[in-house]
Amino acid sequence: MTVITLTTDFGLREGNVAAMKGVIWRIAPQVEITDLSHLIGAQNILEGALMLGRAAGYFPAQTVHVGVVDPGVGTARRPIAARLGDCYFVGPDNGLMTFVLQDAERKAAPIDVVHLDQPRFWLDKVTYVFHGRDIFSPVAAHIANGVPLHELGTPIKDAVRLSAGMPEALPDGWRGSVVHIDHFGNLATNILKHHVEKMKTIRVCIGGASISGLVKTFGDAPAGSLVALIDSSDELGVCVVNGSAQARLNARVGDLVDVVEE
Amino acid sequence: MTVITLTTDFGLREGNVAAMKGVIWRIAPQVEITDLSHLIGAQNILEGALMLGRAAGYFPAQTVHVGVVDPGVGTARRPIAARLGDCYFVGPDNGLMTFVLQDAERKAAPIDVVHLDQPRFWLDKVTYVFHGRDIFSPVAAHIANGVPLHELGTPIKDAVRLSAGMPEALPDGWRGSVVHIDHFGNLATNILKHHVEKMKTIRVCIGGASISGLVKTFGDAPAGSLVALIDSSDELGVCVVNGSAQARLNARVGDLVDVVEE
Amino acid sequence: MTVITLTTDFGLREGNVAAMKGVIWRIAPQVEITDLSHLIGAQNILEGALMLGRAAGYFPAQTVHVGVVDPGVGTARRPIAARLGDCYFVGPDNGLMTFVLQDAERKAAPIDVVHLDQPRFWLDKVTYVFHGRDIFSPVAAHIANGVPLHELGTPIKDAVRLSAGMPEALPDGWRGSVVHIDHFGNLATNILKHHVEKMKTIRVCIGGASISGLVKTFGDAPAGSLVALIDSSDELGVCVVNGSAQARLNARVGDLVDVVEE
Repeated sequence: MTVITLTTDFGLREGNVAAMKGVIWRIAPQVEITDLSHLIGAQNILEGALMLGRAAGYFPAQTVHVGVVDPGVGTARRPIAARLGDCYFVGPDNGLMTFVLQDAERKAAPIDVVHLDQPRFWLDKVTYVFHGRDIFSPVAAHIANGVPLHELGTPIKDAVRLSAGMPEALPDGWRGSVVHIDHFGNLATNILKHHVEKMKTIRVCIGGASISGLVKTFGDAPAGSLVALIDSSDELGVCVVNGSAQARLNARVGDLVDVVEE
Repeated sequence: MTVITLTTDFGLREGNVAAMKGVIWRIAPQVEITDLSHLIGAQNILEGALMLGRAAGYFPAQTVHVGVVDPGVGTARRPIAARLGDCYFVGPDNGLMTFVLQDAERKAAPIDVVHLDQPRFWLDKVTYVFHGRDIFSPVAAHIANGVPLHELGTPIKDAVRLSAGMPEALPDGWRGSVVHIDHFGNLATNILKHHVEKMKTIRVCIGGASISGLVKTFGDAPAGSLVALIDSSDELGVCVVNGSAQARLNARVGDLVDVVEE
Repeated sequence: MTVITLTTDFGLREGNVAAMKGVIWRIAPQVEITDLSHLIGAQNILEGALMLGRAAGYFPAQTVHVGVVDPGVGTARRPIAARLGDCYFVGPDNGLMTFVLQDAERKAAPIDVVHLDQPRFWLDKVTYVFHGRDIFSPVAAHIANGVPLHELGTPIKDAVRLSAGMPEALPDGWRGSVVHIDHFGNLATNILKHHVEKMKTIRVCIGGASISGLVKTFGDAPAGSLVALIDSSDELGVCVVNGSAQARLNARVGDLVDVVEE
């Protein structure tokens, strides 16, 4: 069995995602298809890249991940597909694959990227505005069917990368920023576990608030407490126990976060 | 493999959709089940019909589409099932199948519709308020298992149709209306590609705004531009690039749209 | 084929649910995975328990239901798994299984519950904050693969139960409360069909409103009417036909409802 995952900013109201699934199953009826997220912020390529980067590694070998956050659809931006280690990625060449590419490089995994330029693997009719259905879904299905990348397109080495902000070193720690705010109002930052695990003591400063030390999990502090912890993606997170750090701190993506030794 | 799709106004919070899937898998464990949309506006039969009409055609032959937007559940309104070409539809007889029926007629595809009046294919206990679970899901599963329509019910010729508004001819173009507003705030209209493709020049007038010409895709105009284009369902759409035409124009379903030669 | 269902308060934006599915398919690629609900209110164990209790019974034998509403993740609260009749449940020991346990007891079905204490069936790396992915998903997959409960953990008899409010007998009827408000604004109560079916006449009193008699279904009264009925879960419901009882009555979970003979 092969799995195909779908990540888009299409929302869940219109049936566009369903049309993609229909297209896939017409070509590759044996695959399982699952939603990664369809609530990526409209045109928010960075958020889509982050969600793909966090979840993709948990899927079985040979999984094909389709990402469609695609404000440039129908323009000169290239459609691409990539083999990164034992998985595949299909989508627009706009930076959506930034973190999965970084991850593959860090692991020295095999990397092949092609510019999808073989319309015989697409729907007969390709609209200008819905390549998710007309190009990326059929290509993903053909990959699941075993068509090699080199038949689907021409190798490229210059896939677009987002210049994702890395935290900046301070004399006594790191200055990073909020990269995502989740459903619960928890803040995720670009300061990672490896940045802080050698620090002897920790103080986290964000939006006028100052948090002493890290907890291991939510239940280690009373309900309503503002806490910092290493979250399930090994990112430094700022949370309110059984509440919303977003609401408490009036926080936004991009807000600065300092982590320093006390 | 057979696919069953589900389209409802149930939302995603309550597990009602999951109960439908459980019922289906008890009868037909081999099928794939996928959501088309569960965020159809409450009791909005027209929206459900539109979403089914747009997406159904992309699914494989033998797919069974279940639609449950059903304000008349438990009253005298009939439960029905239809074979339209190589696919099946199951749901209340209230107009939900209007567009898929129209599409089958346009293609001169085989059409068979039955009034579901054979309770032996339903759950043993049928509630008055949830025929999606108690009647339509088991019937869809039996269709996927190969039970022919004529065993499930009695042929009818008078399935309910919505009197869906068609655009009206103007001396120099068409007067239509907004039929749907999507997740991005894009407006879809009932003016179709074939209405406008013979026009030499085009001006789109809606809500006091006037748009000269069509773009091919969003990226053809700067972010924030109000544009008109033929969307992925071959409908004339009105959009703001990387923004919301709904918010810009304070638009609602039913708003008038004129398309005229300049 | 085995089905695994997922019920969480994770929402649909982040891909956490997808990570759980990836983990499951790496271990048990043959299973179908379906969402029961991911829009359980944050940390609302009672709501999660209610949704599991309503939907689980419709799934095929051998289905594995994973529930993750887990404010105590990473603390001393136990991870557990249960066989209840012909189905399985996996999740935190915090009361999420209250109603499925009650249901099994009422049916005198076999009940086995284990404390999951065998890390060899978990992910190699278990975070403090995401046992849904790191413990419950792999355990569910192993159950689907046929691993018996007694290999996964140690039998227990004291799984946590919620003290779910039962209605109180009045001289001429019952006093209950609103236990859930659904997507449509319909109010579900803890007064059940069996409480009222022997009453000769019925008056439902809630929030200053008084409703005489029950209707069988929505369409039995004009649009806009406030009605009471037995809903699809055999609970007494209060609804506005084609509208929202929540909005009409400014209702909240916990509001009192009296049902008396007229």
